[in-house]
Amino acid sequence: MTGKIIALDLVQAELSDATKAYFAKCEEKLGLVPNVLTAYAFDEKKLRAFTDMYNDLMLGESGLSKLEREMIAVVVSSINHCFYCLTAHGAAVRQLSGEPALGEMMVMNFRAADLSDRQRAMLEFAVKLTEEPARIIEADRAALRQAGFSDRDIWDIASTAAFFNMSNRVAAAVDMRPNPEYHAMAR
Amino acid sequence: MTGKIIALDLVQAELSDATKAYFAKCEEKLGLVPNVLTAYAFDEKKLRAFTDMYNDLMLGESGLSKLEREMIAVVVSSINHCFYCLTAHGAAVRQLSGEPALGEMMVMNFRAADLSDRQRAMLEFAVKLTEEPARIIEADRAALRQAGFSDRDIWDIASTAAFFNMSNRVAAAVDMRPNPEYHAMAR
Amino acid sequence: MTGKIIALDLVQAELSDATKAYFAKCEEKLGLVPNVLTAYAFDEKKLRAFTDMYNDLMLGESGLSKLEREMIAVVVSSINHCFYCLTAHGAAVRQLSGEPALGEMMVMNFRAADLSDRQRAMLEFAVKLTEEPARIIEADRAALRQAGFSDRDIWDIASTAAFFNMSNRVAAAVDMRPNPEYHAMAR
Amino acid sequence: MTGKIIALDLVQAELSDATKAYFAKCEEKLGLVPNVLTAYAFDEKKLRAFTDMYNDLMLGESGLSKLEREMIAVVVSSINHCFYCLTAHGAAVRQLSGEPALGEMMVMNFRAADLSDRQRAMLEFAVKLTEEPARIIEADRAALRQAGFSDRDIWDIASTAAFFNMSNRVAAAVDMRPNPEYHAMAR
Amino acid sequence: MTGKIIALDLVQAELSDATKAYFAKCEEKLGLVPNVLTAYAFDEKKLRAFTDMYNDLMLGESGLSKLEREMIAVVVSSINHCFYCLTAHGAAVRQLSGEPALGEMMVMNFRAADLSDRQRAMLEFAVKLTEEPARIIEADRAALRQAGFSDRDIWDIASTAAFFNMSNRVAAAVDMRPNPEYHAMAR
Amino acid sequence: MTGKIIALDLVQAELSDATKAYFAKCEEKLGLVPNVLTAYAFDEKKLRAFTDMYNDLMLGESGLSKLEREMIAVVVSSINHCFYCLTAHGAAVRQLSGEPALGEMMVMNFRAADLSDRQRAMLEFAVKLTEEPARIIEADRAALRQAGFSDRDIWDIASTAAFFNMSNRVAAAVDMRPNPEYHAMAR
Repeated sequence: MTGKIIALDLVQAELSDATKAYFAKCEEKLGLVPNVLTAYAFDEKKLRAFTDMYNDLMLGESGLSKLEREMIAVVVSSINHCFYCLTAHGAAVRQLSGEPALGEMMVMNFRAADLSDRQRAMLEFAVKLTEEPARIIEADRAALRQAGFSDRDIWDIASTAAFFNMSNRVAAAVDMRPNPEYHAMAR
Repeated sequence: MTGKIIALDLVQAELSDATKAYFAKCEEKLGLVPNVLTAYAFDEKKLRAFTDMYNDLMLGESGLSKLEREMIAVVVSSINHCFYCLTAHGAAVRQLSGEPALGEMMVMNFRAADLSDRQRAMLEFAVKLTEEPARIIEADRAALRQAGFSDRDIWDIASTAAFFNMSNRVAAAVDMRPNPEYHAMAR
Repeated sequence: MTGKIIALDLVQAELSDATKAYFAKCEEKLGLVPNVLTAYAFDEKKLRAFTDMYNDLMLGESGLSKLEREMIAVVVSSINHCFYCLTAHGAAVRQLSGEPALGEMMVMNFRAADLSDRQRAMLEFAVKLTEEPARIIEADRAALRQAGFSDRDIWDIASTAAFFNMSNRVAAAVDMRPNPEYHAMAR
Repeated sequence: MTGKIIALDLVQAELSDATKAYFAKCEEKLGLVPNVLTAYAFDEKKLRAFTDMYNDLMLGESGLSKLEREMIAVVVSSINHCFYCLTAHGAAVRQLSGEPALGEMMVMNFRAADLSDRQRAMLEFAVKLTEEPARIIEADRAALRQAGFSDRDIWDIASTAAFFNMSNRVAAAVDMRPNPEYHAMAR
Repeated sequence: MTGKIIALDLVQAELSDATKAYFAKCEEKLGLVPNVLTAYAFDEKKLRAFTDMYNDLMLGESGLSKLEREMIAVVVSSINHCFYCLTAHGAAVRQLSGEPALGEMMVMNFRAADLSDRQRAMLEFAVKLTEEPARIIEADRAALRQAGFSDRDIWDIASTAAFFNMSNRVAAAVDMRPNPEYHAMAR
Repeated sequence: MTGKIIALDLVQAELSDATKAYFAKCEEKLGLVPNVLTAYAFDEKKLRAFTDMYNDLMLGESGLSKLEREMIAVVVSSINHCFYCLTAHGAAVRQLSGEPALGEMMVMNFRAADLSDRQRAMLEFAVKLTEEPARIIEADRAALRQAGFSDRDIWDIASTAAFFNMSNRVAAAVDMRPNPEYHAMAR
């Protein structure tokens, strides 16, 4: 890692074979190793904790589609103005939805999008949880149930929105730079 | 888990032997199983991802003392008014510092505490990262280096503050209740 | 008074006999002379104006119980992150309610508490009055009447919330330190 | 009192002779009984506590001129958008300064006024204490000392700004209406 | 133009005959040339663009009365604390309404005024558009239609509120000073 | 115009020959008629006022390059989360700079970009003017002069930032939709 990826100078250890294999798989499936992984790789324990949580949340079983989880990721990152996550997950929304404009709306202002009531409720909850977590009350959970979400879905919406509130802040704190390839993807 | 711990009704699986053993160790070392773990235990994959990240951040090797990491936890939670984390980590600050009033100040307003320049810089960074992540610039990292922190320490400050921005929001979203035992600890 | 109680160096006059007697009564009833009184005692006219208003509001006749008035005090102070008032009045809530956890919730986030509709309406009004006084409209008063409050009660809720918006700011401006005894009271 | 002065219906007691005399003196000196006094007069104990504090702060001995105290009153009320206090104390600034435009600037935006460094420092402190009391630190007091204020002056700036943070909120909570005469005074 | 009108030193061209005539007409109709026009006159193209837009919005045909448009101007300027626009347009509200107190309420806090439902809806929309443009949704337009406004009226409310969000910022950026005559007008 | 372009139903007049010619020129030079122009075309007087101001600001003579003016446009629109302006002017930054990533950074968080001191000062001023116009003081203008800007340049920075604070709000109020062609331009 160089100053190109984050603004900190961290001592890099030799990557383990397991990590090398994981990165090779990323390269194969995504065409790149996301810089966030390269950034965390200075400490494989931290890298593994991050990827375990990330993969479970974003790729694991859930009542939310992968696109919906990416929409939450981008809407939270839009509030936090996170260059890294907006770039990487904006591309994911474009790709998964096949609608470039949908990715742009999530980045710019999700209220411009023509969403289902379900998705609007989901994103409004993510926004409130991001902006004013202390004001979440039972009525907010009731609104999600009303929109058709199960309690387990609520957990997943909450965990995803919360995760990007973490991830946005790590990226902001270290000035993490996204892989330039994302900008042109799925336009 | 019942409505007492979180406001969601999640289907609980039978705990694995590994998790039972882990909880027994908590009971032994802390005198209780923190409710956050019981809450996550509906899905052991999520529980493990959470504890792996948590234990590395809060208990792993770092240039920050355990007390300093707990101070960050509480100051972030004070901004977010997180009842769960203020209760559990406020107790930890009281315990680790042996100064009950220090725990109270972190909960109420860390600016009331008589801190070293190093700790003040650390907490000011955590506050800015919590409140205005989009405004973090190189000067903010420079201030931490000026206060004696290494780049690796900056990563740890950032990761800890970011983690509690996640954790506070999961707790808020599901109305997580702290174990009542915390209130009286180390007063 | 020393730098321990406030951050200003004020010329202390000899206390009058009346004030000495008042302080002796505090000592007898509370076990201490609250530092706020010691702070104001540099000018007995200011001290008397403060105590007259305070005693009428917090101890005088009202449709609000003493506990309810203390709850307002703490919730306002939580928004303003006032170390002095959270410490002193948090103790009062613990004491008057006999529920230590209730005091903690008022300090940390009153929305975590299981309150009656009446008390929730009362505290929501206090919060709005604290955060956005310019937006109070007739509908806000109507909500209090709906919750069972008389017009005189509304005056008392308003006056109490307003008083702590004053008191929090005096304390913040001079870095007023609470008596250390409060921390351990009624835990 | 009628609905014209405040939005609450409070039971009015017969005024005592002392209060009647006090109101007659107001009428004589100001040409009116300020509505805030009429509003508080439903309970003479509250009225007296209010006027004792008010008169000491605004008319008592202080290193701040009466005009400076009124400037603080208006600047705080401008942040809180308090119709009552802006009207009554805006008139006072116009009157005491003999500069109608100065009153307008305090109401609209004190930064438009051509102030001395001393007065600017005083008002900046009042603004920060109003908007972000939790962030006041020693450097803020140091800035006032630097601008020539004694520690006793700092107490007075703080108390005045704090008082109007109370008063603005009582007025907002009960929709207090200023005497119409103020609008045309000292234009 | 001198430092008296704006804080920038701009090279003034000779005024064209058309502009001289326009200013003479202002003098005749208003008794003064508004300083905003003098400020823009350093570049006649900019002056003309400004006056064309201004005159169409504020004086052209519309379902909103001229007073209503001035009310929007003042309420937006109150949020932005714009000394220039509050002074000039506050005078206009006093003049057009014949009610000095109405002008004061628009400057200080429009919620203090006893308005029709129509005008309250109009001003609430202007406030939300000023404070949180990103949160305007269909329900906000529906509320205006509900209050009796046509779609064309909504355009006019929006354009007027938006224009003063521009104008307030030009004035703030260059410290534009209003003509002193405004202060005493229509009191 | 249909519901596709704005959320209001406005009566469309027949376009004049001059407007038809203007739109044909847009089509020829830009490959499209920007929807904002189509939206304003319901009233040619409003359209002309808008285009006169826009063309002078964005295309007229200035010490700011066209790219710099577009950067201001996008940064202001990022704060206001304006879908229309971020889309149209984000494309312009990509096009004028030849750096797609620069456009993305202006949309997402300009602080991520590696800018000259001059451009950073320019954008910081635009941000403060957008977020807190009431707090602009002489020191803010001094910072621009320090960064090499003339007083005339300051006027242009201010006017451009102010204009998009208007334009963002018109777009938000009527839910203006950008031409879909912008999304793919200059990626």
